[in-house]
Amino acid sequence: MTAPFARVALIGLGLIGSSIARAVRAHLPDVILAGYDEDPGVRARAVELGLIDEMADRPGEAVGGADLVILCVPVGAMAAAAAAIAPHLPPEAVISDVGSSKNSVAAALRAALPGARIVPAHPVAGTENSGPDAGFAELFRGRWCILTPGEDACAEDVDRLAVFWAALGSRVEIMEPKHHDLVLAVTSHLPHLIAYTIVHTASDLERVTESEVIKYSAGGFRDFTRIAASNPTMWRDIFLANKEAVLDMLQRFSEDLTLLQRAIRADDGDTLFDLFTRTRAIRRDIVEQGQDVAKPDFGRHSG
Amino acid sequence: MTAPFARVALIGLGLIGSSIARAVRAHLPDVILAGYDEDPGVRARAVELGLIDEMADRPGEAVGGADLVILCVPVGAMAAAAAAIAPHLPPEAVISDVGSSKNSVAAALRAALPGARIVPAHPVAGTENSGPDAGFAELFRGRWCILTPGEDACAEDVDRLAVFWAALGSRVEIMEPKHHDLVLAVTSHLPHLIAYTIVHTASDLERVTESEVIKYSAGGFRDFTRIAASNPTMWRDIFLANKEAVLDMLQRFSEDLTLLQRAIRADDGDTLFDLFTRTRAIRRDIVEQGQDVAKPDFGRHSG
Repeated sequence: MTAPFARVALIGLGLIGSSIARAVRAHLPDVILAGYDEDPGVRARAVELGLIDEMADRPGEAVGGADLVILCVPVGAMAAAAAAIAPHLPPEAVISDVGSSKNSVAAALRAALPGARIVPAHPVAGTENSGPDAGFAELFRGRWCILTPGEDACAEDVDRLAVFWAALGSRVEIMEPKHHDLVLAVTSHLPHLIAYTIVHTASDLERVTESEVIKYSAGGFRDFTRIAASNPTMWRDIFLANKEAVLDMLQRFSEDLTLLQRAIRADDGDTLFDLFTRTRAIRRDIVEQGQDVAKPDFGRHSG
Repeated sequence: MTAPFARVALIGLGLIGSSIARAVRAHLPDVILAGYDEDPGVRARAVELGLIDEMADRPGEAVGGADLVILCVPVGAMAAAAAAIAPHLPPEAVISDVGSSKNSVAAALRAALPGARIVPAHPVAGTENSGPDAGFAELFRGRWCILTPGEDACAEDVDRLAVFWAALGSRVEIMEPKHHDLVLAVTSHLPHLIAYTIVHTASDLERVTESEVIKYSAGGFRDFTRIAASNPTMWRDIFLANKEAVLDMLQRFSEDLTLLQRAIRADDGDTLFDLFTRTRAIRRDIVEQGQDVAKPDFGRHSG
C-alpha cells in the first residue's frame, strides 16, 4: 500500500510512542520516522533499539519536514509539547496525539497551534508497562483507535489518519470528543481508579498484612493489580483532564455499590444472584467481539 | 509417595470438585474416587469424562467406605450436604470442604456432623468458568490451600489433609478461621464485589450504550469482567456467609474511594500521583512470588 504519510514525527517515546514506531517499521516500512523524548535516556534507548531514523535533541527539530506529527505524551503535558513545536510545525502537517481524554487535549492543541491541521486520536490499547522497551509492534492489532476531529477539521486529513491507524492494525472509529470522554470514563478511567483504590485499601489494613494480601492474591485481587501498575503520571493527568465525566461515573458506581452493600446487609440473596447473573453476559460479548482472550483465567495456566 | 487417603469422596463436581478429581488422577493414581453431584447431568458428564471411579446416586452412598470426604458445593449448600451424608459418614473419615468462607462453614459442619473429624479447607484457586468441563488437574499448582482446623481437631487429620493438598500441587497454610475470612474478604470477596458492581454500572447507563462498553473494553474494563463472570450462586453465598468481614472491607474501600474522589475534584495531582506510585510495588511483589504471570497484559498478546 502507499503510505498515507512520508515522514512521521513522534514526540514522546514511551509505551505508545515506541509501539507506533515499531508498528510503522513493520507495516509502513517506507515511512521515515523522526522522534524526540524529553528524557535523554529514553532518546538514547530508542536509538539503540533502532526505533527512530532521525532522533532530534529538541522537539522543534523533530517536526521539521514531517507530514504527520503525533504527540505521545501524558495528557497534562500536551499543551507544553504543542507549544514547543509550534514555531517549527510545517503548515501542511497533520498534528495528532494519543491521549486518553480528548476534549481537554483538543482545546490545548487548538490554543497552542492556531490554524494547524489538528485531528486528535486515541488508540484504545496499552499494557501496564511503561517506557520504550515496553512497546511492541502488535499492540494496536484488533484494537479500536478513536479519532475525534473538530468541526473545522479537513475530511482528507481525517481520512489519511484513519488509513495510517488501519495500517498499524487498528479498527478506526470517529467520535465526538465529549462522547469519547464519557465512554472512556466508563470503559477505562473508572476501572483504573477503582483498581488503584482497592490496591491501596488492601495494602493499608491493620489486621491483614501486605504479605498476606500478596500471598493470597490469586483469589481475585491480582486481576486488579495489573492496571494499578500503570504509569502514575499518565493516570494522574487523565483523571484531572477528564474530571467531570470521571466524577459522574464514580457517583453512579458508588450508588450501585451501596445497593449491593444493602443487599448483603439485608441478606437479600435474590438481588445479588440476579445482578451476578446479568454481568456474565457482558464477559461473553467482550470475548466474542475479540476484545479479550477466550481462555479462562486470561490463559495464565497455559504459559 | 504413599497416598494419605485410600478412598476420597467428592460431593459436588463443578470447577473445584472436578479439578480435585483430575489432580488426584494425575498425582495420586492409587486413590479410589467416589463422587456425587445433585445435578444428574453433571453426574453423567463426570462419568463420561472418567473423573470418578464410583458415581453414586445419593450423597450418602458416595461417602460409604471413604477415609476423606470433601464437600465441593457453594457455601450456602454446605449445611444441607453435610446433613445428607451424616447418617452414612464413616466415623474414622476426615471431612473437609473447599468453601471460600470458613467460620460459617465450620459452624454448619459441626452442627450437622457432631463428633466428626472436621478439617475445613480453602484452596485459593479458581477460574471464572463453572462446571465439570471447566476443571483441570493443574488448577492448584503453586496456589495456596488454607486449612482452618478447629481447636478440637486431631493433629494427624490436619497433617494428612496437608499432605493430600501438597500432593495436588498446593502450598499449604494453617490459619484461624476468623482471620481467614478477613484475609479472603480483602483478597477475593471485595474484588469480586467491586467487579460485579462496575460491570453492572457500565451496562446500565443512558448516554453510553452496552455495545460501546464492550467495544472499548480493552482500555481496562475487560480486566474486571473476568471475575464478574464467576458462578453467581457461589458468590451470592460467599457474600452472605462472610457478611461482617465483607461489609468491613467495603467500608474501608468506600472511604479510600472518597479520598480519591476529593483529590480529583480539588485538582490535587500530588495525592493521586503518590498513591498511584505505591500501588505499583504490590503488583511487582505478586509477580515475584509466583502468584501471577510476569507477562504484560496477562500475556494476552502471546496467545
